[in-house]
Amino acid sequence: MKKSTRALFLGRFQPYHNGHDAVIRKITAEVNELIIAVGSAQYSHTLRDPFTAGERIMMITRALAGLKSTKYVLPIEDIEQNALYVAHIRRLTPAFDLVYSNNSLVIRLFEEAGIAVKQLPLIDRGHLWGTKIRDLMTQGGLWQTYVPPAVCTIIEEIGGIERLQQIQQSDLLSTGPSSSASSPRRGESD
Amino acid sequence: MKKSTRALFLGRFQPYHNGHDAVIRKITAEVNELIIAVGSAQYSHTLRDPFTAGERIMMITRALAGLKSTKYVLPIEDIEQNALYVAHIRRLTPAFDLVYSNNSLVIRLFEEAGIAVKQLPLIDRGHLWGTKIRDLMTQGGLWQTYVPPAVCTIIEEIGGIERLQQIQQSDLLSTGPSSSASSPRRGESD
Amino acid sequence: MKKSTRALFLGRFQPYHNGHDAVIRKITAEVNELIIAVGSAQYSHTLRDPFTAGERIMMITRALAGLKSTKYVLPIEDIEQNALYVAHIRRLTPAFDLVYSNNSLVIRLFEEAGIAVKQLPLIDRGHLWGTKIRDLMTQGGLWQTYVPPAVCTIIEEIGGIERLQQIQQSDLLSTGPSSSASSPRRGESD
Amino acid sequence: MKKSTRALFLGRFQPYHNGHDAVIRKITAEVNELIIAVGSAQYSHTLRDPFTAGERIMMITRALAGLKSTKYVLPIEDIEQNALYVAHIRRLTPAFDLVYSNNSLVIRLFEEAGIAVKQLPLIDRGHLWGTKIRDLMTQGGLWQTYVPPAVCTIIEEIGGIERLQQIQQSDLLSTGPSSSASSPRRGESD
Amino acid sequence: MKKSTRALFLGRFQPYHNGHDAVIRKITAEVNELIIAVGSAQYSHTLRDPFTAGERIMMITRALAGLKSTKYVLPIEDIEQNALYVAHIRRLTPAFDLVYSNNSLVIRLFEEAGIAVKQLPLIDRGHLWGTKIRDLMTQGGLWQTYVPPAVCTIIEEIGGIERLQQIQQSDLLSTGPSSSASSPRRGESD
Amino acid sequence: MKKSTRALFLGRFQPYHNGHDAVIRKITAEVNELIIAVGSAQYSHTLRDPFTAGERIMMITRALAGLKSTKYVLPIEDIEQNALYVAHIRRLTPAFDLVYSNNSLVIRLFEEAGIAVKQLPLIDRGHLWGTKIRDLMTQGGLWQTYVPPAVCTIIEEIGGIERLQQIQQSDLLSTGPSSSASSPRRGESD
Repeated sequence: MKKSTRALFLGRFQPYHNGHDAVIRKITAEVNELIIAVGSAQYSHTLRDPFTAGERIMMITRALAGLKSTKYVLPIEDIEQNALYVAHIRRLTPAFDLVYSNNSLVIRLFEEAGIAVKQLPLIDRGHLWGTKIRDLMTQGGLWQTYVPPAVCTIIEEIGGIERLQQIQQSDLLSTGPSSSASSPRRGESD
Repeated sequence: MKKSTRALFLGRFQPYHNGHDAVIRKITAEVNELIIAVGSAQYSHTLRDPFTAGERIMMITRALAGLKSTKYVLPIEDIEQNALYVAHIRRLTPAFDLVYSNNSLVIRLFEEAGIAVKQLPLIDRGHLWGTKIRDLMTQGGLWQTYVPPAVCTIIEEIGGIERLQQIQQSDLLSTGPSSSASSPRRGESD
Repeated sequence: MKKSTRALFLGRFQPYHNGHDAVIRKITAEVNELIIAVGSAQYSHTLRDPFTAGERIMMITRALAGLKSTKYVLPIEDIEQNALYVAHIRRLTPAFDLVYSNNSLVIRLFEEAGIAVKQLPLIDRGHLWGTKIRDLMTQGGLWQTYVPPAVCTIIEEIGGIERLQQIQQSDLLSTGPSSSASSPRRGESD
Repeated sequence: MKKSTRALFLGRFQPYHNGHDAVIRKITAEVNELIIAVGSAQYSHTLRDPFTAGERIMMITRALAGLKSTKYVLPIEDIEQNALYVAHIRRLTPAFDLVYSNNSLVIRLFEEAGIAVKQLPLIDRGHLWGTKIRDLMTQGGLWQTYVPPAVCTIIEEIGGIERLQQIQQSDLLSTGPSSSASSPRRGESD
Repeated sequence: MKKSTRALFLGRFQPYHNGHDAVIRKITAEVNELIIAVGSAQYSHTLRDPFTAGERIMMITRALAGLKSTKYVLPIEDIEQNALYVAHIRRLTPAFDLVYSNNSLVIRLFEEAGIAVKQLPLIDRGHLWGTKIRDLMTQGGLWQTYVPPAVCTIIEEIGGIERLQQIQQSDLLSTGPSSSASSPRRGESD
Repeated sequence: MKKSTRALFLGRFQPYHNGHDAVIRKITAEVNELIIAVGSAQYSHTLRDPFTAGERIMMITRALAGLKSTKYVLPIEDIEQNALYVAHIRRLTPAFDLVYSNNSLVIRLFEEAGIAVKQLPLIDRGHLWGTKIRDLMTQGGLWQTYVPPAVCTIIEEIGGIERLQQIQQSDLLSTGPSSSASSPRRGESD
């Protein structure tokens, strides 16, 4: 089979963990260049999306520093119009001819646009790690073994655990930005 | 009673079905011209909003092709500010002096703006059809009898059933656009 | 302790009630000037956010008319990017050196930006009043004793009770703006 | 040559005039169905864009009332990202396989997306009429002969001439929305 | 003549100067309550809009501190849709029954919405002061005599003159935010 | 002098040329890590901004492929609120303690936020190259000597010269996206 010139891998990376890392290292052997798109880039400081796009980009870049193949690590904000999503990604990334995804909507949208999609080689149910790791962080558990060492260091430098634990406390009187996992905008009590 | 010069009918039309069709044919006898506003126009490719605005506009136009009275079929995107909603609709449509709606918020907003609202003559609980039809589509049931023949043809041409069935599968590793019915933006697992 | 030059108090004020009023009168003794930020300013006509920003600003201004210290009452719209929230507020308000809040995310965001935050002196669990008052309004209960007299007058003038009771009724056929408390955009049934 | 199933014609229609009318009537003989996209739909009340999208849609629908072939008249708002423009139009319209345009950027964008474009059969330099007609309207000249009778009637009903003449007067003290032709947002003097 | 219950005065206030001050003091004698809307609220750090909305609100509030009548000083962001402008203002302000303006487009928009507009009693060509004062600031001239003393103090405290003089220097290599007076977004050289 | 941990370099890179390349290679000797921010990321297909963000990111990554030090190449969209610009960049990038810029507004905004800014070591008036190169491209001149070989290859692969020459032709009848250099939205003739 001919190698893809350039492939796209899409994730939220909250945080970048060993599941992502294993999959990406496997994919890089199959493609010439890899675009790693950091999705939901506009969100941060919530239980579901604790880290900023910049922090996530730094995690990925550091963890993959030794990888020789060319990679692009780029923030992609969510948009509400699914019918624009493929064009939205394409204008922000170099051209690609293959997408790695297990998300059925992503698969559908790229297939309607005529772009090939490959299922991800899941390793040890890595897709469940994100929620588990954030829960461990919030509850003071041992999250460190699930992420690459470089990610550990970054999360400690930015006070990531304190951030998660602080925003988890329930809101009281004030209004304002929301830490609710289900809605980024409106978790205020009053 | 004097005929309305021009009336507004607001719906999501996911898809346009026989319930809509019966109501609209009844209304057109009462008004000179009818504006059919296709609401939530920015959404598509979700379980709750599978079809694009353009696809819905085509369904309505085709199904009502034989209707002689003047009609306008127009996309209207949702906005988050309810207090702007009436002005938002009015700038995109010809002037109207009557609104058909059973939605209590729509009624309230237009009444606060001084525009008359009439309750819709519901036919056979047609307002429940939308959810039922989409469920039938997803589960491989007999949805065809609930929509006009022209709508059947369009849904088959665009691969609408495959789209619904594909986006219904649960998301796995990737991030990106959401097929979740409750939130158009954030159904990713990780 | 040195008095703050100017402090920020953030709330949704749906509606402005005696709990807010007691806290704000207490705070004004501790600061030279007070900025009262009316959050979630873009929302109105929902069960959770029935009043417009303009209506809420009028409530606060009238209720505090006798207060001598300088105060600013300003609308602040929610934004989806938490990482921009502090800068978003600062560009719309005079400079401040203290924030009053019990919202853990607000505390976190301002602390990450290096701005001092003080817990609010809660009076009689005032932070629970908002929901309770809106419930009383919707169900025809005695809400009047929970708000300052000036707020009573305004709510009656604008037909606020009728608005809440009307938008509470369940939606039927039409699409359009949403009165759902959990989502401002998408409560339509079909 | 095989007839196009459905073609797109894009214009601002400020106002819809005899130049548009002649071209569209000619095109409808060449295609089965025609989509008339009313561009720059968000603008109105400026010297360059005096009429709302709703008013322009009414002009076109009335002027072409006698035309038998199926047509869709739809508002399309400008977006700032050219690289999204084709996808933006496609989600709001029925599928099309041909675009009529003389705009070199429009041609380029659709060609990059793999969609055929045909040059418009210009009739009597009709493309210059828009500016000329608006100038005549502003200066009290004889604009009526350049537009279909139905458009005349609509412009008179909505007070279009008074609107143009009033917004043409130079701004003085206040700020606010702009009537400047070159910038829709910022024509205030102070 | 019956006094207006509540009137609206709209300006950019870049900065608030003696021309504004004289007009507003005159108006307050004619109305019960005055809403002062700080337009173009999203802009700052440009030659035409040097001050943030928060800074302008502080200027007005301080300068009018001695004024007894109730006033509301509120930020209003520009929007690109003129047809929404009146509704946009009304949702952010208490209800008003009179607008003071000399801006012909503002007059037109409010008149189309059925709201009375009064021409401003211009004092000594005050409407020309804004540009002149900003030019004096940029060139090191004597701007202080054109603004109330409270405004002088604020501009000095925030380093307003240094800001204007620094952003006036021509851009060189980099891209980024724009200081161009005619366009807030795109003044970069390369 | 201590090395910066991480520095930011901001440009539009339309296209990435030898002037940028020389400056960036010089800067990388002074810092540990460099963030290259591709500004005005939302624009493309205009005379002033011909290339998409993705195309520009590919140019920079390829041209600097041999550079050993860690670099981040990230798209940054312009926003209209200058007072949010620094926070907007910071949420999308890893933390930095130094900015390289000659743009006086950029300098001002970062200095108001307490971040150090260094003037760029201009090489051979490189800041003028962007306009000159785009003019050469449009007119069929010898632009190739002004950009790194990798950029040449990319521009040829994407048909960049044809794009520029095609969008340069004057618009005629249609409305739609704009190729005007001064305004990205509104260059249509009618």
